[in-house]
Amino acid sequence: GEAKLNLANEVTEFIGTTIGDTIGLVIANLDPKLREMMGIDKKYRSLGIIGARTGAGPQIYAADEAVKASNTEVVKIELPRDTKGGAGHGSLIVFGAEEVSDARRAVQVCLEELDRTFGDVYANEAGHLEFQYTARASKALNKAFGAPEGKAFGISVGAPAAVGVVMADVAVKAATIDVIGFASPADGTSLTNECILFFSGDSGAVRQAVIAAREVGLKLLGSLGDKPESVTKPYI
Amino acid sequence: GEAKLNLANEVTEFIGTTIGDTIGLVIANLDPKLREMMGIDKKYRSLGIIGARTGAGPQIYAADEAVKASNTEVVKIELPRDTKGGAGHGSLIVFGAEEVSDARRAVQVCLEELDRTFGDVYANEAGHLEFQYTARASKALNKAFGAPEGKAFGISVGAPAAVGVVMADVAVKAATIDVIGFASPADGTSLTNECILFFSGDSGAVRQAVIAAREVGLKLLGSLGDKPESVTKPYI
Amino acid sequence: GEAKLNLANEVTEFIGTTIGDTIGLVIANLDPKLREMMGIDKKYRSLGIIGARTGAGPQIYAADEAVKASNTEVVKIELPRDTKGGAGHGSLIVFGAEEVSDARRAVQVCLEELDRTFGDVYANEAGHLEFQYTARASKALNKAFGAPEGKAFGISVGAPAAVGVVMADVAVKAATIDVIGFASPADGTSLTNECILFFSGDSGAVRQAVIAAREVGLKLLGSLGDKPESVTKPYI
Repeated sequence: GEAKLNLANEVTEFIGTTIGDTIGLVIANLDPKLREMMGIDKKYRSLGIIGARTGAGPQIYAADEAVKASNTEVVKIELPRDTKGGAGHGSLIVFGAEEVSDARRAVQVCLEELDRTFGDVYANEAGHLEFQYTARASKALNKAFGAPEGKAFGISVGAPAAVGVVMADVAVKAATIDVIGFASPADGTSLTNECILFFSGDSGAVRQAVIAAREVGLKLLGSLGDKPESVTKPYI
Repeated sequence: GEAKLNLANEVTEFIGTTIGDTIGLVIANLDPKLREMMGIDKKYRSLGIIGARTGAGPQIYAADEAVKASNTEVVKIELPRDTKGGAGHGSLIVFGAEEVSDARRAVQVCLEELDRTFGDVYANEAGHLEFQYTARASKALNKAFGAPEGKAFGISVGAPAAVGVVMADVAVKAATIDVIGFASPADGTSLTNECILFFSGDSGAVRQAVIAAREVGLKLLGSLGDKPESVTKPYI
Repeated sequence: GEAKLNLANEVTEFIGTTIGDTIGLVIANLDPKLREMMGIDKKYRSLGIIGARTGAGPQIYAADEAVKASNTEVVKIELPRDTKGGAGHGSLIVFGAEEVSDARRAVQVCLEELDRTFGDVYANEAGHLEFQYTARASKALNKAFGAPEGKAFGISVGAPAAVGVVMADVAVKAATIDVIGFASPADGTSLTNECILFFSGDSGAVRQAVIAAREVGLKLLGSLGDKPESVTKPYI
């Protein structure tokens, strides 16, 4: 609204905000001392920055589209233990760019994608589920999760973590997929109450695995509370 | 109720839910790829799984009874930073079994014990206290906390952590106990706001230490808010 | 009030409580077994203990005044992931003293300082900002953050972490300061959703950097929710 337009005039770093308490920012000319502290390559004069209290998967899948659509590199992905008392992560994603217009573009694309990538996040008072799917993983998913670039890549997340274990077993049995990784509270997450399966493969198989895990996950999480509802609108 | 019976018919993995947003699940035939990712021994075809948003001590003491009562082994105990915005842990506990009936039995015993083991959990708006006691520690307590098997074993937990330090000092002075461990926010917990004393020894001494710590802990936590109340019904 | 006086009569360890669910406690004669478990030097018979659900910076800056005003040493600073579902830390700070009167004095000074040191903590429903400034850093700030003793020392904290990155860039450009450190969700925090800049230098420059970061931080955090308000009363 008007307040945000005013803010954009006053604070040159501000790009926008959206779902998940996600904020998008840019730094046109990163200070050299801060650059050194952050360990960012000298060739990147400008940064695009995405931060959120709630969500890591939605932001990382959105960042994957952003790097496809801009001349940037994802230089940092850090996942706080957050979700405002929920069971999962928040996120901090930094794009490096030689030109501020590229950094701005990456942040804008990322913010715009989030409405979609929150579509298969389902929550109730006891926990949450998350599913993501892309037909072609790019550099953000590779950096964050080791996704093979150019291939379909999906994730299945269940919280509390016990639900995620059963969902992982269902996913891997539902289709012929390449299991890329498995994360749990003490191994591969930021101490979240989640189990996550990462998988690659044929596009149809990856979707099939996601859909099978989603069906069981919704029933199991529903046993602990209300029917889990999509945060926005399912896309898979 | 009826909804859960329907769920049990539809989703073969579902066993039940109880206090602490605890869910009990089984996997009859664990997928070999997932088994490898989880690092679980090939001899266990079936898993019993307990997961919770709130509580680690109650679930681990309940799991200790479950391994005594079933032909299973505790193969994984992971403790997320959780309690839904509270100061403590959630939990993920996995039982390995050669037969699914054993996995199911372990999960059922564990779920049934939780009403008791939440009895000496006391909470108010500022934090929580937890006390546990068993006359005879078994393999779950050994795996989780290094408890000597076959001996009495108790824990004293205070949150915020400062309260737990004083409770630990009171416990260790109240009786002749063997101090097995001490955990604090940066050392031995999953970054929780707790200090925990783990102790073994003569059954009477372990109980006496628990009772002394509980008396002081209830007063100190009460100074930060309302009188802390038992979540269910005290058992020690 | 009267309830707390009664508590102080009953529980000799109790000193007081204040903002942030902060509690102040003493142990007159630390048990030797617990001392060993906690790794505390034998010369300290007595401990002063500060613990809080919300806040680390306010408590550490307050502890810095406490060590200046008492014959004590800060022997332990541990920072749980807490703030009761917020984006930041809680705290556990332990003072070692040869005499219980010194431990008590340190805890009292620390509790009294907290009303001031929460003054430049600003929060809304989306996150928080924190600024601290001292003209002369002492041993608590040195131990916690590597602050050079005897020099001015400031911090700028933004949550969600993306806001803290921009604030750090603004601070370092606003004045000639020595950047002592930079912390982010995966590096230097307890998985909080914060980025923090630590800086030393000339007293005027440190204040100027804080003030510049504060101006931008308030606008950026405000874009995610209500106008962020001081928890008590600004002091910088």
